[in-house]
Amino acid sequence: MGIITVIGSGLMGSAMSIPASDNGHLVRLVGTPLDREIIRSLQEKNVHPTLPCTMPDGISAFQFEDVRKALEGADLVICGVSSFGVDWFAQEALPLLPAGVPVLNVTKGLLGHSDGSLETFPHFFARLRPDLSFAAIGGPCTAYELGDRRQTLVCYCSEDLATAKFARDLLKTPYYHIVPTTDVIGVECSVAMKNAYAMGVSLAIGMSEAENEQQRNVKKVENSLISGAHDGKLHYNPQAALFAQSCIEMRRLVRLLGGNGDLVGGIPGAGDLYVTIFGGRTRRLGTLLGRGLPYSEVKKRLAGVTLEAVSVTTRVAEALRIRAKHKEVSLQKFPLLMHLDALLNQEAPLALDWESFGESGMQE
Amino acid sequence: MGIITVIGSGLMGSAMSIPASDNGHLVRLVGTPLDREIIRSLQEKNVHPTLPCTMPDGISAFQFEDVRKALEGADLVICGVSSFGVDWFAQEALPLLPAGVPVLNVTKGLLGHSDGSLETFPHFFARLRPDLSFAAIGGPCTAYELGDRRQTLVCYCSEDLATAKFARDLLKTPYYHIVPTTDVIGVECSVAMKNAYAMGVSLAIGMSEAENEQQRNVKKVENSLISGAHDGKLHYNPQAALFAQSCIEMRRLVRLLGGNGDLVGGIPGAGDLYVTIFGGRTRRLGTLLGRGLPYSEVKKRLAGVTLEAVSVTTRVAEALRIRAKHKEVSLQKFPLLMHLDALLNQEAPLALDWESFGESGMQE
Repeated sequence: MGIITVIGSGLMGSAMSIPASDNGHLVRLVGTPLDREIIRSLQEKNVHPTLPCTMPDGISAFQFEDVRKALEGADLVICGVSSFGVDWFAQEALPLLPAGVPVLNVTKGLLGHSDGSLETFPHFFARLRPDLSFAAIGGPCTAYELGDRRQTLVCYCSEDLATAKFARDLLKTPYYHIVPTTDVIGVECSVAMKNAYAMGVSLAIGMSEAENEQQRNVKKVENSLISGAHDGKLHYNPQAALFAQSCIEMRRLVRLLGGNGDLVGGIPGAGDLYVTIFGGRTRRLGTLLGRGLPYSEVKKRLAGVTLEAVSVTTRVAEALRIRAKHKEVSLQKFPLLMHLDALLNQEAPLALDWESFGESGMQE
Repeated sequence: MGIITVIGSGLMGSAMSIPASDNGHLVRLVGTPLDREIIRSLQEKNVHPTLPCTMPDGISAFQFEDVRKALEGADLVICGVSSFGVDWFAQEALPLLPAGVPVLNVTKGLLGHSDGSLETFPHFFARLRPDLSFAAIGGPCTAYELGDRRQTLVCYCSEDLATAKFARDLLKTPYYHIVPTTDVIGVECSVAMKNAYAMGVSLAIGMSEAENEQQRNVKKVENSLISGAHDGKLHYNPQAALFAQSCIEMRRLVRLLGGNGDLVGGIPGAGDLYVTIFGGRTRRLGTLLGRGLPYSEVKKRLAGVTLEAVSVTTRVAEALRIRAKHKEVSLQKFPLLMHLDALLNQEAPLALDWESFGESGMQE
């Protein structure tokens, strides 16, 4: 049995301690400076304030001041911060990691650079610590359900297959299934973009809701018979159309960045998109935009929380614009993403161009 | 404006008359011998008994005895039967079609032959009427929502691109968006298999339901605190894992048959699968199997209706077994499909082998 140190005790980082501890490993959960209350709660009551499952035995919690102690003898370090904590992790935690320890990253996102290039977090970390080997997790896995030991299927990607397999062997359980791959770009690009596109698919949910309300009002006022089944149900043809278009654009982006487009029709693409649509805040963000609210109003309703969907949409749209200027890509290949960016960053009104969607001759 | 004759006045055939008539075409809806009551209702009250929308003007309904009259001067014939009506259509309707008329097929399914080959319906029809040009529709489109003029995105496939484009130009509307393609195998194989795999994804829904019930019972008896959020919610990690695996196996099958695997991560694959999971009877079939009921019991509950999901699963599993004998394919590449076949045709108990899922080295 080994020692697994998780840095970042938010939902996903903490949930990773469930399969780790089920496999008999000692788990050390280290909080970031933002996780102070979580760690205190774990230390005092063995209760995680937001993850509803009881934490198993064999887990110890550390404030970040004690990170060195928590890293002693670790067989694996898990980076459990969200994409907004990546810079913090790179500056504060990465330099402290012991030589030779493999790192498994749960963070989803992409970094944008001024030349239009997009960088995965494992590649970013490897630039800073070229002596270490990095892997990353991608696939449909909500923290709550992993914590509840639901059947879950993910990819572990690493340019060094042995690192991905090493992490898999430590963490796989009868409910947590792990497929190793060397396609870091394919996995990381898919799982980053699924946040943007889950917002995109959710537009259709908001459009249905708004239409249903309107129909109810019309009915109230005119008391007239209205054609069709305006029964308050969500409509799935438009959701499915946006789901398909999301997969098409994700595949184009993965191929543009040099990954295997097949991953999009699999675990980190379609699979992760599916689970994210039924998730919490990204669905709510897309639904509110789909109801026709301007993003400035949506932001108020979301209590100012910036979501990963907003950040990745903005970054990737900007990267594509730079590349389009250099004639490396046509923005017409990404009509849904560019409209999402316009909704978020230009207060554009909702106006999906359905005719621009589709495989366009399957040439890509 | 043209004349469009639809043969088969079930849900989907009839729904096609909405975009057709919105475009100003004369629509002639012809019933099969099973559609007698539908046609009578349309003739007498202009009401379709199962499609809830009011039928627009410009639609005339014909019993099959009058099919010759309905075909006179038709610019396009739409084959609107379900897969169980294909043989009837081939024998009774196909010989009557006027020379030169293009045919657009809404039927989803594959024909299996004794050598393990699988044939699409457009290819089957073209063998019988080599003088005609066939196209087919694939993509996420429920009849109710098309009838309600919801935003809908589909592919029209034909080996003759001009035929696909001709049909598109007749039928596209501001809510019905059509992408033409020559990849008949890719589209037809994806949309046939999505019925099988929508049943597969729905297994996870039934598993959640059964587990939630069990937890409620345990709680009642023991009145004990149970770890985790057994809150009666459906679980999305397992659904998403099965969604991903479905896409992976669909892509393998499309490539095996010579189609473009990219279509699976797009309109006829992931998109159509998504809408079918939220549909009616296929979801119910998979959910009941997921609850652990044997298929013999499920069949009773479904009142003996044989679903396209059952037929396509059985046919394709049989074709794969024949091909596996000839060493043309490994059945291990289709663990979900083969288990679905075992559930349906061998009364096998539910036992998903999650470890067999995934891209397995992305080698395909």
